[in-house]
Amino acid sequence: MKKLLFPLLLLFSIQSFTQTDSTFIRKIYDEALENGESYQNLKNLCKDIGARITGSAEAEMAVKWSEKLLKSYNFDKVYLQEIKVPHWERGTKEAAWITNTKGEIIKLDILALGGSVGTDGLLEAEILMVEDIESLKKLTHQQVEGKIVYLNKAFNQKEINTFRAYGACYPIRGNGASEAGKLGAIAVIIRSLASPTDNFAHTGTMHYDDDVKKIPAAAISTQHAELLNEWLKNGKVNLNIEMDCSIYPDVTSYNVIAEITGKDAQIITWGGHLDSWDVGEGAHDDGAGVAHSIEALRILKKLNYQPQHTLRCVLFMNEENGNMGGKSYAKIASEKNEKHICAIESDRGGFLPLGFDISGTSEQVALVNQYANLLANFELYRFRKGYGGVDIGPLKEFYPEMIQLGMAINSQQYFDYHHSHNDVFENVNKRELELGAAAMAAMIYLMDKTL
Amino acid sequence: MKKLLFPLLLLFSIQSFTQTDSTFIRKIYDEALENGESYQNLKNLCKDIGARITGSAEAEMAVKWSEKLLKSYNFDKVYLQEIKVPHWERGTKEAAWITNTKGEIIKLDILALGGSVGTDGLLEAEILMVEDIESLKKLTHQQVEGKIVYLNKAFNQKEINTFRAYGACYPIRGNGASEAGKLGAIAVIIRSLASPTDNFAHTGTMHYDDDVKKIPAAAISTQHAELLNEWLKNGKVNLNIEMDCSIYPDVTSYNVIAEITGKDAQIITWGGHLDSWDVGEGAHDDGAGVAHSIEALRILKKLNYQPQHTLRCVLFMNEENGNMGGKSYAKIASEKNEKHICAIESDRGGFLPLGFDISGTSEQVALVNQYANLLANFELYRFRKGYGGVDIGPLKEFYPEMIQLGMAINSQQYFDYHHSHNDVFENVNKRELELGAAAMAAMIYLMDKTL
Repeated sequence: MKKLLFPLLLLFSIQSFTQTDSTFIRKIYDEALENGESYQNLKNLCKDIGARITGSAEAEMAVKWSEKLLKSYNFDKVYLQEIKVPHWERGTKEAAWITNTKGEIIKLDILALGGSVGTDGLLEAEILMVEDIESLKKLTHQQVEGKIVYLNKAFNQKEINTFRAYGACYPIRGNGASEAGKLGAIAVIIRSLASPTDNFAHTGTMHYDDDVKKIPAAAISTQHAELLNEWLKNGKVNLNIEMDCSIYPDVTSYNVIAEITGKDAQIITWGGHLDSWDVGEGAHDDGAGVAHSIEALRILKKLNYQPQHTLRCVLFMNEENGNMGGKSYAKIASEKNEKHICAIESDRGGFLPLGFDISGTSEQVALVNQYANLLANFELYRFRKGYGGVDIGPLKEFYPEMIQLGMAINSQQYFDYHHSHNDVFENVNKRELELGAAAMAAMIYLMDKTL
Repeated sequence: MKKLLFPLLLLFSIQSFTQTDSTFIRKIYDEALENGESYQNLKNLCKDIGARITGSAEAEMAVKWSEKLLKSYNFDKVYLQEIKVPHWERGTKEAAWITNTKGEIIKLDILALGGSVGTDGLLEAEILMVEDIESLKKLTHQQVEGKIVYLNKAFNQKEINTFRAYGACYPIRGNGASEAGKLGAIAVIIRSLASPTDNFAHTGTMHYDDDVKKIPAAAISTQHAELLNEWLKNGKVNLNIEMDCSIYPDVTSYNVIAEITGKDAQIITWGGHLDSWDVGEGAHDDGAGVAHSIEALRILKKLNYQPQHTLRCVLFMNEENGNMGGKSYAKIASEKNEKHICAIESDRGGFLPLGFDISGTSEQVALVNQYANLLANFELYRFRKGYGGVDIGPLKEFYPEMIQLGMAINSQQYFDYHHSHNDVFENVNKRELELGAAAMAAMIYLMDKTL
């Protein structure tokens, strides 16, 4: 054995926590793991309501359900915050198939992208494959005119955090229709933004630039993307597609809010989003975040915690296709001159929590890291500079000095389920969900006593 | 916001790694995630062979399969190490039901414990419930005589690491039959050692003390344990049980070994165990460890790594019911005067790797922690004093100064599957398995250059 150069314990960190903190956080975990209600609440949301896209009856039912649930816990305040939200519907027709020069025919696993227009009947055209938006932009109008553009960028499997792979593919979903429409394409299909190769199509939001013709857009399963790639090596492939999805006028909906009143006027906000896509059950995205957020407040109330600041749990509406819940919440907060000092979000699924990503200054990163050794005892290890979340993000415009935290959760399986028929309750593990709720409650407690 | 007391970055650690290390480990991860073979290898082991209890035809097939696979990778050496192993068979009869005073009757989910004798026909007796071995020992021969003892200790859900909950319940499985037999019981059933409440029975090893009558022992599902507890509140419950499992004479089997020869005579050993229980497919326990171990050597070979020490991958036989693979490997190593400096084990499933538990001195813990910041870039965070593993454990007797590392893996779901019909390939996630293989290869590389 070589000489050991560093005989002393190498990890040095200032520990500013007390035995009281450790004991209290242990109680949080005990309550979450032994008497937890997060799993049953998630089951009710997924099985009694299910998919709940903004503007749907199910989304309104989720508002009523969560308001009733929060009121049952006897928090100091429970109320709805009225907002305007977009309204898109998938419709009843959604089918596509491909044919090749040999006359072979395959029906595709597809889902219209959220916000897409319909096809107005059955479309047929030749498929033009491009890797990504940059490659598409290099083509001429003549090359694209009348074709169906197929954007084929796959997840980079080498990214350890799958959110990075997702981020790199995001433009094909968000901008594909606008960019292809500018060049005269009649529709767009994309390879689903997903980690595995399987037969689930994954929907998600897209938008149209103001100045372009709106063309239909859909995602196909990664398995069918692989098949299509093989076919395209051997010649022309035609796509037939029909979808009758539509955009409707904005409607009224609500953020659902519950509070424990603090000793001062400052506010710690946390939450997940109540809406989901219109397929599956929105279990990981973001039923888990809703369950975490409600449970964190329930536990703190159950333990009779008397906060310094007002603790406010917000179930945001419309994260998926517009973020009107998050944007409206921030705007209303500012108009009311509320004092927001911290926001925490859970929107990365119900898998094992690993820590928190910190959106803030180096000092704020250090502020959280003073608890790293304490939280390591609860198997939370990761406290790095990073992203907070979509729902809480708009608060930063009005409160640039606040600290924002995004719960960092094992990302490996998230994009197996995300925005697909496969995002159902059965794919959430009880203990992992409960640990997420406990982690959130622990961080709320620590921020409340520190800020 | 309160005054921030600790404005500087709080985590201070000595970084003794180089850019070369970081680049090489990145290559390991790229190979595992982009061109990985661990998932396909695990699929072959689970689906083409399946359950492979020591002494079975399937266990011998697993020996042949893994030898052939390892030879296909052109390592410097691939060979079998002959050992003697126990031989127990479940037989063909395994059934039990309970009846209560109201005449209700329920068939139980059961599995004989590994090593149990059979019932020699259908047994019937009243159930005597006790919580654990301590409670059982307080009873008199008169209280227990002729009864079927039911040991009912449940996992402590408050334990964040589920291996602790498992460890606390282990005695009811390991010692229950001996202790109940001493008091005149005619059989033992136990609540399955499992995290969730569901309908899977979980088997596992048990032993008989030399001086006691051997009585049959089986596990019932946690769901049926809950039901039985309810029934027992309302009066007597009888159990009928029949099992024809048997213990047979020891047989010959093998550890399967592959090596890349080092520049010096010292050896780094790592592995998982090739045997499993006789139900399910031994996917998480320990097909995953086998897949990790083979893949780690494959990647290092593929990257043309020239090690300082001999790198030896060992697929141990008989971890589950005797550990004759681990014990024999250590004994043979000592007899050959081999120089063992490090051993690494993967036997905690194919879930997300979190780091490594270090069995060694404080200096050895520090030695690993010099790479904590490097490995955090690969989402490995946990490097604490802890347990290495069952297979590598016996080496410590002969090499007390060696460092042993047990791969620390997300434990939340492990005891959902462990030793049950539910431990199948479908419950292993591809990326999580691949990250485990990469973590193992990275640690082998770091230990090879450090020791």
